[in-house]
Amino acid sequence: MTNTHSIELRVRYAETDRMGVVYYANYLVWCEVGRVEFLRALGHSYAALEHQGTALAVAEATIRYVAPARFDDLVRITTTLTGVRSRAVTFDYLISHAESGVRLATAHTSLVSIDSGGRLSAIPPAFRSALAAVL
Amino acid sequence: MTNTHSIELRVRYAETDRMGVVYYANYLVWCEVGRVEFLRALGHSYAALEHQGTALAVAEATIRYVAPARFDDLVRITTTLTGVRSRAVTFDYLISHAESGVRLATAHTSLVSIDSGGRLSAIPPAFRSALAAVL
Amino acid sequence: MTNTHSIELRVRYAETDRMGVVYYANYLVWCEVGRVEFLRALGHSYAALEHQGTALAVAEATIRYVAPARFDDLVRITTTLTGVRSRAVTFDYLISHAESGVRLATAHTSLVSIDSGGRLSAIPPAFRSALAAVL
Amino acid sequence: MTNTHSIELRVRYAETDRMGVVYYANYLVWCEVGRVEFLRALGHSYAALEHQGTALAVAEATIRYVAPARFDDLVRITTTLTGVRSRAVTFDYLISHAESGVRLATAHTSLVSIDSGGRLSAIPPAFRSALAAVL
Repeated sequence: MTNTHSIELRVRYAETDRMGVVYYANYLVWCEVGRVEFLRALGHSYAALEHQGTALAVAEATIRYVAPARFDDLVRITTTLTGVRSRAVTFDYLISHAESGVRLATAHTSLVSIDSGGRLSAIPPAFRSALAAVL
Repeated sequence: MTNTHSIELRVRYAETDRMGVVYYANYLVWCEVGRVEFLRALGHSYAALEHQGTALAVAEATIRYVAPARFDDLVRITTTLTGVRSRAVTFDYLISHAESGVRLATAHTSLVSIDSGGRLSAIPPAFRSALAAVL
Repeated sequence: MTNTHSIELRVRYAETDRMGVVYYANYLVWCEVGRVEFLRALGHSYAALEHQGTALAVAEATIRYVAPARFDDLVRITTTLTGVRSRAVTFDYLISHAESGVRLATAHTSLVSIDSGGRLSAIPPAFRSALAAVL
Repeated sequence: MTNTHSIELRVRYAETDRMGVVYYANYLVWCEVGRVEFLRALGHSYAALEHQGTALAVAEATIRYVAPARFDDLVRITTTLTGVRSRAVTFDYLISHAESGVRLATAHTSLVSIDSGGRLSAIPPAFRSALAAVL
């Protein structure tokens, strides 16, 4: 396992808008799917992390839209862990057309670790170590 | 207050799909908005009901699509309470074009009352009385 | 190929609501995904059908919610073609928990064939034959 | 009319996630609603603009999440036009809790003008003049 993990997903009809392309907010949904699968590949279920009382809340997101994704396209989400601190973690994302390789969007998110009451809290040590090990 | 309450909402771009019309699942979102505003008009906040430990979970939904809603249309959601029992409540919905009155869809939902553990539970008496009073 | 086709999908965080379960409208999104993959398995891309000028618009949907799906669950969507006529097609859906087999929801949709202007139109013969062949 | 316009909207149940707060991608939907209403206040319907063959596609979006919005909160979206060029327009957004004034998020989007074929095209003169007049 490196700090990069890729998944593919098929564009759903529900994700398109009347412009005939994927609605811009939905790329952030894909980033979240990429992030969850990155963590699973690392051996950590995000669902289990939340059940243990820690959530990762997005503090900032930036996305650049390069070319549109369309219904039924197979898109690849490449998620790269770019930083880990005591209470924060950052990821970059590359969204591309799986067959042609054409770049569709790039994104970046910063997440902070919070407890079940919504307060900033330290990332659990085992989880933080697993992240740091692939950086 | 009768057993019927209407609201209007503006169709969002996000709610459309590549067919150029509102995606079919989104009408159920509007029914939920209509339901919440029906309860507010009755003097009961659904958010408060949940904070007190009771949720209304949809057990069944039926929707008939008559004519498409489009981006920027002003649509009217008319919500009608059709039944109240100890642990269930039913609503009908008429979704129409606010300006022309054209019927866009009709829907029906059955909801059951559950506690915070997801178990069937009695609708709180004050809430049930308020519903029954307008039937 | 029979008249039934199954796919699996992983519940996204975006699909949940504050009740901690999948929001009720999102099951209709999954039905659409199941329907599109049913057609692909049959050798017909729904995207291609639309490019050729025919769309299938949902005229009616009914869904019964039996048990909640939760974040990160692997769910199975089993789509069954139940009828084909000159301008209409019907499907049933069973949504179940992929690992336990627990039934989460059942649904039914009726779709009508429309042209690019939104008028009722005959289902293209090759497409209708392919559907009829597995009924 | 200045370069700033505010609207209020009620948080929908559908917009929340299992963390009990509004799902992060949905703030971009609200930005779009704010943008459309800004244009309407300026005397220009975005729907009409699209019918005339020009669309505004988001090229970049940045959002900072400060505090969570919750179900049934009344939120205010304040949209500010920050720049207009021949083929691009930029907006800033402030999302706040309507009653308390608490800042929930800030965002920025850059949009480019495209024709119905998806190619970069000049913003129609009347529309550009209306935008420039309030800057």
